[in-house]
Amino acid sequence: MKVYLAGPDVFLPDAPAMAERKRAICAAHGLNGIFPIDVHPPQAGHGLPAWLWTYRRNEAHMRDADAVIANLTPFRGPSADAGTIYEVGFMRALGRRVLGYSNVAAAFDARTLAFLGPTARRDGEGRWRDAADMAVESFGLGDNLMVDGGIAEAAGVFIRQEVPEAERWRDLSAFEACVRTLARLSGATADW
Amino acid sequence: MKVYLAGPDVFLPDAPAMAERKRAICAAHGLNGIFPIDVHPPQAGHGLPAWLWTYRRNEAHMRDADAVIANLTPFRGPSADAGTIYEVGFMRALGRRVLGYSNVAAAFDARTLAFLGPTARRDGEGRWRDAADMAVESFGLGDNLMVDGGIAEAAGVFIRQEVPEAERWRDLSAFEACVRTLARLSGATADW
Repeated sequence: MKVYLAGPDVFLPDAPAMAERKRAICAAHGLNGIFPIDVHPPQAGHGLPAWLWTYRRNEAHMRDADAVIANLTPFRGPSADAGTIYEVGFMRALGRRVLGYSNVAAAFDARTLAFLGPTARRDGEGRWRDAADMAVESFGLGDNLMVDGGIAEAAGVFIRQEVPEAERWRDLSAFEACVRTLARLSGATADW
Repeated sequence: MKVYLAGPDVFLPDAPAMAERKRAICAAHGLNGIFPIDVHPPQAGHGLPAWLWTYRRNEAHMRDADAVIANLTPFRGPSADAGTIYEVGFMRALGRRVLGYSNVAAAFDARTLAFLGPTARRDGEGRWRDAADMAVESFGLGDNLMVDGGIAEAAGVFIRQEVPEAERWRDLSAFEACVRTLARLSGATADW
């Protein structure tokens, strides 16, 4: 089973080493991990701008994959990385299995209120709103309800756990929990 | 042609009025606008938690639609609203036409650097990185390359324009430009 390894891990200075670590964990559980920066044959798209070439490669990887495990750790704001969220929606629409994890345990509501700070206030019905009067989702989920809903409908899991901030982009225990879950769900055979 | 009207507009205190405004603009150009909070028959899902019921309704609306026009105005951080980005990825994977607009003109790079502030620095290769050493995408796009790439591959447009901050969630001129573009691309017949 091929699993696409989505996440802002691609922005790490040692992204290839992270790719190796994630692939090794997948292999130990009988899964074939595909990291976004992996080469995708054929190398079409010579002459395309780098961003569009990158998009096409990532989309081709996703179409090849049976499932996605997404790193949904909050990234530069209350929500996960935009590219990763796009990929979660994409894979759900393709009918693939979707799993996610976050190395921050706090719920989306709490993270959003922390982000808004003193600009947030309750309206007459007790609902939190920001300075532009836009409501704050208050379902106690991991992220916007579309993310949690897509995972639920795709028969996946969204595992959140708190790790020390210095390890936020390095700790792979929640990732490994997703891999174990996917291997069990898919009946993959471990190598040992 | 049915077009799904994605965006954080659903968080406005007068979301039903915004739905009416957007639907009227669509109708004037021969398109059938579907707003997320519109009723979707049949009303299945009694007893589901509200968030999952909402997810299923939104997904059903998207599957019915031929295209999406997404409000990608930055929302609580450098990127667009998480739920909207999910929906852009979802619609691209279904092979539907994808259009987007933003009422903030600045590119994603500039918005990200403004968000990071003095914590951003250049690495040895001149690439911007945040305090956790994660790279900043620098393609001059509207959002993360997956968003711009999905729109490009779906033969859409991503229209960005600056409006006064007080009008950021009210001004519909960029939205209307998307509607005009979609009507032209799809050969819709206007009512007048």
